[in-house]
Amino acid sequence: MSGVAEHRSPEELTQLRSRIERFVDEVVIPREPAPGDHLDPALRKELQQAARDAGIFAPHVPRRWGGLGLPISQWPQIFEAAGRSPLGPTALNCMAPDEGNMHMLSEIASEQQKQQYLAPLASGEATSCFGMTEPHPGAGSDPSQLQTTARREGGEWIITGEKRFSSGANTASFMIVMARTQPEGAEASGATMFLVPMESPGISIPRQIHTIDRSIGGGHPHVVLEDVRVDDEAVLGEPHQGFRYAQVRLGPARLTHCMRWLGLASRAQEIVLKRANQREIFGAKLAEQGIAQAMIADSEIDIETSRSIIERTAHLLERDPKAGSRLSSIAKVHCSEAVYRIIDRAVQLCGGDGVSTNLPLAQYLNEVRPFRIYDGSSETHRWAIARRAVHRQQRRMEQSAEYSGGA
Amino acid sequence: MSGVAEHRSPEELTQLRSRIERFVDEVVIPREPAPGDHLDPALRKELQQAARDAGIFAPHVPRRWGGLGLPISQWPQIFEAAGRSPLGPTALNCMAPDEGNMHMLSEIASEQQKQQYLAPLASGEATSCFGMTEPHPGAGSDPSQLQTTARREGGEWIITGEKRFSSGANTASFMIVMARTQPEGAEASGATMFLVPMESPGISIPRQIHTIDRSIGGGHPHVVLEDVRVDDEAVLGEPHQGFRYAQVRLGPARLTHCMRWLGLASRAQEIVLKRANQREIFGAKLAEQGIAQAMIADSEIDIETSRSIIERTAHLLERDPKAGSRLSSIAKVHCSEAVYRIIDRAVQLCGGDGVSTNLPLAQYLNEVRPFRIYDGSSETHRWAIARRAVHRQQRRMEQSAEYSGGA
Amino acid sequence: MSGVAEHRSPEELTQLRSRIERFVDEVVIPREPAPGDHLDPALRKELQQAARDAGIFAPHVPRRWGGLGLPISQWPQIFEAAGRSPLGPTALNCMAPDEGNMHMLSEIASEQQKQQYLAPLASGEATSCFGMTEPHPGAGSDPSQLQTTARREGGEWIITGEKRFSSGANTASFMIVMARTQPEGAEASGATMFLVPMESPGISIPRQIHTIDRSIGGGHPHVVLEDVRVDDEAVLGEPHQGFRYAQVRLGPARLTHCMRWLGLASRAQEIVLKRANQREIFGAKLAEQGIAQAMIADSEIDIETSRSIIERTAHLLERDPKAGSRLSSIAKVHCSEAVYRIIDRAVQLCGGDGVSTNLPLAQYLNEVRPFRIYDGSSETHRWAIARRAVHRQQRRMEQSAEYSGGA
Amino acid sequence: MSGVAEHRSPEELTQLRSRIERFVDEVVIPREPAPGDHLDPALRKELQQAARDAGIFAPHVPRRWGGLGLPISQWPQIFEAAGRSPLGPTALNCMAPDEGNMHMLSEIASEQQKQQYLAPLASGEATSCFGMTEPHPGAGSDPSQLQTTARREGGEWIITGEKRFSSGANTASFMIVMARTQPEGAEASGATMFLVPMESPGISIPRQIHTIDRSIGGGHPHVVLEDVRVDDEAVLGEPHQGFRYAQVRLGPARLTHCMRWLGLASRAQEIVLKRANQREIFGAKLAEQGIAQAMIADSEIDIETSRSIIERTAHLLERDPKAGSRLSSIAKVHCSEAVYRIIDRAVQLCGGDGVSTNLPLAQYLNEVRPFRIYDGSSETHRWAIARRAVHRQQRRMEQSAEYSGGA
Repeated sequence: MSGVAEHRSPEELTQLRSRIERFVDEVVIPREPAPGDHLDPALRKELQQAARDAGIFAPHVPRRWGGLGLPISQWPQIFEAAGRSPLGPTALNCMAPDEGNMHMLSEIASEQQKQQYLAPLASGEATSCFGMTEPHPGAGSDPSQLQTTARREGGEWIITGEKRFSSGANTASFMIVMARTQPEGAEASGATMFLVPMESPGISIPRQIHTIDRSIGGGHPHVVLEDVRVDDEAVLGEPHQGFRYAQVRLGPARLTHCMRWLGLASRAQEIVLKRANQREIFGAKLAEQGIAQAMIADSEIDIETSRSIIERTAHLLERDPKAGSRLSSIAKVHCSEAVYRIIDRAVQLCGGDGVSTNLPLAQYLNEVRPFRIYDGSSETHRWAIARRAVHRQQRRMEQSAEYSGGA
Repeated sequence: MSGVAEHRSPEELTQLRSRIERFVDEVVIPREPAPGDHLDPALRKELQQAARDAGIFAPHVPRRWGGLGLPISQWPQIFEAAGRSPLGPTALNCMAPDEGNMHMLSEIASEQQKQQYLAPLASGEATSCFGMTEPHPGAGSDPSQLQTTARREGGEWIITGEKRFSSGANTASFMIVMARTQPEGAEASGATMFLVPMESPGISIPRQIHTIDRSIGGGHPHVVLEDVRVDDEAVLGEPHQGFRYAQVRLGPARLTHCMRWLGLASRAQEIVLKRANQREIFGAKLAEQGIAQAMIADSEIDIETSRSIIERTAHLLERDPKAGSRLSSIAKVHCSEAVYRIIDRAVQLCGGDGVSTNLPLAQYLNEVRPFRIYDGSSETHRWAIARRAVHRQQRRMEQSAEYSGGA
Repeated sequence: MSGVAEHRSPEELTQLRSRIERFVDEVVIPREPAPGDHLDPALRKELQQAARDAGIFAPHVPRRWGGLGLPISQWPQIFEAAGRSPLGPTALNCMAPDEGNMHMLSEIASEQQKQQYLAPLASGEATSCFGMTEPHPGAGSDPSQLQTTARREGGEWIITGEKRFSSGANTASFMIVMARTQPEGAEASGATMFLVPMESPGISIPRQIHTIDRSIGGGHPHVVLEDVRVDDEAVLGEPHQGFRYAQVRLGPARLTHCMRWLGLASRAQEIVLKRANQREIFGAKLAEQGIAQAMIADSEIDIETSRSIIERTAHLLERDPKAGSRLSSIAKVHCSEAVYRIIDRAVQLCGGDGVSTNLPLAQYLNEVRPFRIYDGSSETHRWAIARRAVHRQQRRMEQSAEYSGGA
Repeated sequence: MSGVAEHRSPEELTQLRSRIERFVDEVVIPREPAPGDHLDPALRKELQQAARDAGIFAPHVPRRWGGLGLPISQWPQIFEAAGRSPLGPTALNCMAPDEGNMHMLSEIASEQQKQQYLAPLASGEATSCFGMTEPHPGAGSDPSQLQTTARREGGEWIITGEKRFSSGANTASFMIVMARTQPEGAEASGATMFLVPMESPGISIPRQIHTIDRSIGGGHPHVVLEDVRVDDEAVLGEPHQGFRYAQVRLGPARLTHCMRWLGLASRAQEIVLKRANQREIFGAKLAEQGIAQAMIADSEIDIETSRSIIERTAHLLERDPKAGSRLSSIAKVHCSEAVYRIIDRAVQLCGGDGVSTNLPLAQYLNEVRPFRIYDGSSETHRWAIARRAVHRQQRRMEQSAEYSGGA
């Protein structure tokens, strides 16, 4: 969305962030559902209207579609502020998977597709889902295992396959479906992305998957596609370019997750700091107990290193999307593990209240646990990060035969 | 219970462990409630009967009260085997808090108290709870903050106070209440333990505390004691010796938690190993992926170090309860953190299934998370461990003026 | 030095970094002394001349004093490139403690002091040291324990005290001495900084302290000041402002250490990557072994998070030195621990060669180990970080009585 | 050596341990060389004589050869006590590699070989080395890469190859050489162990490898064997059984390393505890600072878990050497990493003194660093541990088709 973005001055950005923080603290947090409960659709509508009224709705969406038009380099502070509540991003309409889908539609979709799919998404009227992950042994950590296919027949595409962990599918009005396609005359197959209304004949949701997180309204169900017919206008971008487009979506989508969850981790740290200022134990304030101080400091370090790599990656994504996407892989591993550690320390420092519904912290722990798995597990990313490092060194050594770094 | 225990030969012990493992795998695990659900009382009865029939009921209870009479040095393997299911210890009637209460009653109670309280507990007819923890600023990590009091009036004790996290209180028939008492003529107050039927006038449960664990049937509610009257026969052991008795209970009680949870962690590791043998990813079995191997090995190391310090501490508790209690503090920190890491790795290695109800692992994570807080948080134990180390060195230095260890 | 700095374009900066990298790889690294040996003064001169000839000398020093005049926001890449060899920063004359002293002189010294002290330092003719740390129970982790005093007598200052870990003192031509002074009429004492030539009567170096690092030429000796007399022109900045000035020096000085050591850590990672591409073990390249990949990835993550927080802190130090100094404390803890982990993993992945002089890695480990202690230990910083976090929250809560973050 | 061992009562063992501790504290520690220096051979002789006089010499050696004849299950406390100084095990003649070689000779050698090689080793007259590790791509982490060969010629064996990291070779009077041999008529080759005097024609030490540890007198040099001729009496045990014998040596040898280094780690902890009782910082004793307490506690936990798994493994090695050897692999990874952490924390808590020669801690860090690499690196062991876990589960699943552990 960089093309149409409007950079704000540092002062404007700081002001906007403060307004969002205040909105989340005063409007959203008091309405959070009890730990373990799901978001009510009516509440979603109400919060989005309040955000619209507060002038903070859809900060990442181009002005043309009703958003604030911020460039990606200015998302970090804004999304973090929204993430102070698990509901904040939904209220501001910058929650996954819609936010990533809006970004991709805005970059790749045709004008007609934008009118049909992006407009209602940006305005909050509709929600969407992204159909990539499949049951084993299909596409999961390893996207090349994609099993869902789309074949040509009579000028139409016929899509068949099964998706799972289709976040948001229960309430979505359309799915962006990733399917294997065969370019004419080519040996190797590719993948194509299709915009498929959820009411299309052949789509069904045979069963839910119950996960420990609650912040995505439409669950993570199985979705079966059985001979679903779409025409050429359903193709998002060019046919057979799906794997490349997936990267367009993935880099920023990973990073906005980091931003949002960092907001929740900061909130957890505030809960701890507030308590540490109040509680006395063994004759002194918790805030003055050295073991607690060490844990508080470790969380500060986790917060600031996360903030730093998020900001650097966001700038890089704006300037050089490919390099930014590579760095987002590192940022994702660090941030997903850091936010978990932060909230885990918060639970620990709040003792019995930490593991009960007296505080929302135990639910936050369940909320962020899957992030170390979704969008590529830490292990898959580490494997990819190592391979890229090894290749970088190979290129460096080829370039310089006389390299003198080691034995 | 050492006095009446009967040591088994290594072969007998191994055989007993195998029988318990088979029982848990074949009888208990198939009946586990869905993740997040509580145990049904009828199922509890059924499983306990099955355990009785299998000759493995109440392994830690003296023969006289219907148990197997194992000495504490032989509990580790047995309790670990039972812990393979969160329900296993309940089935074998060696679950907290009853197990720790049985141990204390068996060590300290009068014959009449044993008949009245230990007998139905040992047979599984009744359950119990232990009233130590209080709402802030009462007894929590710091037991010296005890606020509940028992005062003498007309030959009776009148107990007033509030307890929280009273595990099992909802279904318990009696509570062992820790209350501050004033020894006649003494300056400092002490604490006394009372055996108090839950149906006593003045006891009420005004509200539940919902925690993320599910394995203790009777919840962790608030319990209010308002002028509850008991006579001298309700005093457990000697009056004013409560803090000392608490140590009698705490050392073994902490360690049996370690044993049971280690069983659950081993089960999680088995689920991973089974999957690692079946799943293929990136062209090879998960079991052959180095990053997965490193995680599997780390869990093996956590399992074996936990097993080792549990066994050593159990032997020490039998031989020298005071030294054993000190070591149990170290064992508790290590094991509570190790079992969490093991299950967390299991969740991670099972990907999407790990954080959903497709596998029980995410619930296990919630099951063991509080163990780093209950029975003394890791931080409180670390503080105590460090203080003991410092004192040990002080004594050593006093004994040897010519000590030559450092600068 | 921000006032006189000249920002380079991103392209110019990248080019400068490449030139420095090439210089370090081709000119400096081949001349590194054997592991454990110290730098020869003649080699120092030779390398500095080579850097001057290459147009990369004193990158942080204002043009007026012969440097490249880079602003602090542009130091990170440059210092990291220099740090690829423990000798690189010396060659470029941006090594501690001179670099920090140049920065402080350039910010605080009078014109006459700049001519006398900064000029020869900037040109590499002279070296310097900074006299802050004292033997126990003097100034160490806790600067307020400062014991060295300067008293007024006959229009002169008479300085008396003892310093230790006075890095570089053996070869320095002057020391910046921190001494406790008593402002006339004031209750509380302050501290004053003095510029004291090492040849002044009363200064002696009674004994060396042998540390495990080797990269600072002039060692870390004890320095005794016995009635050393200086006049008012020796006062750096205003009298009694020493603690405040120490902060001016500390923020950037901590961060440049991070930059330089990150360079060394990157070099260690390159040695590993090169080897991983060449060595075969258990039938495959080391680079393809998953356990090695996980370690390589962890080091990449440590490198990129360090780079990110260094860059963000450097920008902040330029814009808002006080906020930058606070963040530098967090950056210092993270980077000092990250670089140690990176080099430790490199040692591990190189096996027997890693712990022998076949590779320089074991010496690098000794080189960076003290950084977790020097310039404020990790523990002292963690304590300060926690206190600042607690105060931040207190202010926030005072500002907003209606804060709604927790229980 | 189990056959001829004499179990002591717990009281006798405790007494022996105390005597050794006192000996090390009073006799050995005052004679430790300066950090970084090597042990003088004359001092070695003197200390061994003192240990003989004190009746604590060669605790693991059978009575017949002049030792105390302790069984392996009773080594842990004894070797840990000796390890309080890097010189302690040398003084007691239970240092690697001699101790492992004595064990193997005592188990496998012929009577004549025992007279010739074991007797002078056990008495301290001679030292030995073990020739297994080879330069890349020979035997290292992967023993199956063994390149050194022994071929039959005229009733003799002719050994050719190159060994490296041959610990102790500089001063050894003989080497146990591992060489590839071809059993007559067999397809696959095996390995044979040979007892080879270092003065044999064809043996040379072309170069030293300088490593960061100092505690093994005879260094870790390269040793070249060029057509070294030995007769059948040089074969240790049966020909072609070398890989199997290597396991006999490895299990206990790994574990005794753990015992000795744990002694050094305990000593480092004592240095810290002593200091923590004396130093004041920020207005309180170091021992009362919470962050220091957390680190002290972590080291206590590392010490006690190490002690526990060492003791359990030693008992298992006595009862079931094969199972013990498997567990020793886990113990080695845990202990080698734990002792490093303990000493690293000690360095940290002692600040500037920790990284200088004011205290021996920085040298201890260098002393134990290689242990994570020698005797199988942590990574190689983790890989083996994971594979064994996977196989264990496979067997379990084959035995029970109806296994019900997971999805």
